[in-house]
Amino acid sequence: MGETPPFLADPETTRESIMRATYLALCEHGYAGLTIQRIGESFEKSKSLLYHHYDDKDELLLAFLQFMLEEHESWVPESTDDGPRERLDAVIDAMLPPELAAEHHGFTAAMVELRAQAAHDERYRDQFAEHDRVFQAHLVDVIEDGIEAGQFRDVDAEAVAAFLGTTVAGAMTRRVTGGGDRAATTTREALESYVDRVLLADGTEAAE
Amino acid sequence: MGETPPFLADPETTRESIMRATYLALCEHGYAGLTIQRIGESFEKSKSLLYHHYDDKDELLLAFLQFMLEEHESWVPESTDDGPRERLDAVIDAMLPPELAAEHHGFTAAMVELRAQAAHDERYRDQFAEHDRVFQAHLVDVIEDGIEAGQFRDVDAEAVAAFLGTTVAGAMTRRVTGGGDRAATTTREALESYVDRVLLADGTEAAE
Repeated sequence: MGETPPFLADPETTRESIMRATYLALCEHGYAGLTIQRIGESFEKSKSLLYHHYDDKDELLLAFLQFMLEEHESWVPESTDDGPRERLDAVIDAMLPPELAAEHHGFTAAMVELRAQAAHDERYRDQFAEHDRVFQAHLVDVIEDGIEAGQFRDVDAEAVAAFLGTTVAGAMTRRVTGGGDRAATTTREALESYVDRVLLADGTEAAE
Repeated sequence: MGETPPFLADPETTRESIMRATYLALCEHGYAGLTIQRIGESFEKSKSLLYHHYDDKDELLLAFLQFMLEEHESWVPESTDDGPRERLDAVIDAMLPPELAAEHHGFTAAMVELRAQAAHDERYRDQFAEHDRVFQAHLVDVIEDGIEAGQFRDVDAEAVAAFLGTTVAGAMTRRVTGGGDRAATTTREALESYVDRVLLADGTEAAE
């Protein structure tokens, strides 16, 4: 998620145009500052279409999260040509880039706000449970491929994937809520060391 | 934080009474559902005192976070009689208990919502940066004591503490935003294994 998601760059349908406008408005205003009016400002078509399809901003944002989920294969980087270690690094790098451009910083902050809605709103809770499942399944897939290829040790792939996902979630949250970019870079380094120690079959240990 | 923080149990001053009422209202209503009116419902003294001291709910909540910070020694468990491994386990156990009573679940959810305010509000960002610093310093202290005592390996205490704190933050967030208690218990187990592998001086490796 280090750049504007490619599936949002060239909207072809009305739905895609609405999703693109929602993304741009989230990046600029965050959740707290978002209104359907402001989403309308980034929307190229008739604003009445927005009000026609969505009753309030939460309904639109839940549709946006669902859209992100359907398109996750576009924003979670994947290249089966690379080895398991490289694929794992690519996923973690994408979630924890060392720096964030303004647009992407705004989007990460907005996602942290959206996730917090799940603390009191079951609809958001269901969406983020599904997001976490999809991310978890992706990590498990990479880890199991690595075990099969003999590059990773015979670990409990579900447990390791859950740990990686949880740590990445913590780092993304801390980054935009007080920790700054350092919260991401120190976590990235620590995960490098964790993968070396726990996953790599040759048992290489990284320097502390 | 597995029970009502002891410093909130028996308020002696007006400020402590306000903080206790804020805590109870947060547990019940979360951030989104909170109003000064609702805090007043848990307040034993004249409600006009609340309005006199605080202009709006955010001002009151920022004062509450500051109060938590001042009292952190009461809610971060500490017993210097125990060994470093036991002290470290106690801190992590307190942050990630296997189950949460309703009051404590409500408080964890509210803290996730409060932290998300930091995504767009600098005052919250400063507060949570300070919370993270205090928690980090506590973990570093325990780890350095363990190194000095020869129980822990000579790791980079700052880096290990940051990793532990980030993972705990991720697990607390996921627990109340879709992951359920399983997000806490699987992370707790993974951290056990991490401490075994990375920290313990005898190099014991936990079973995967």
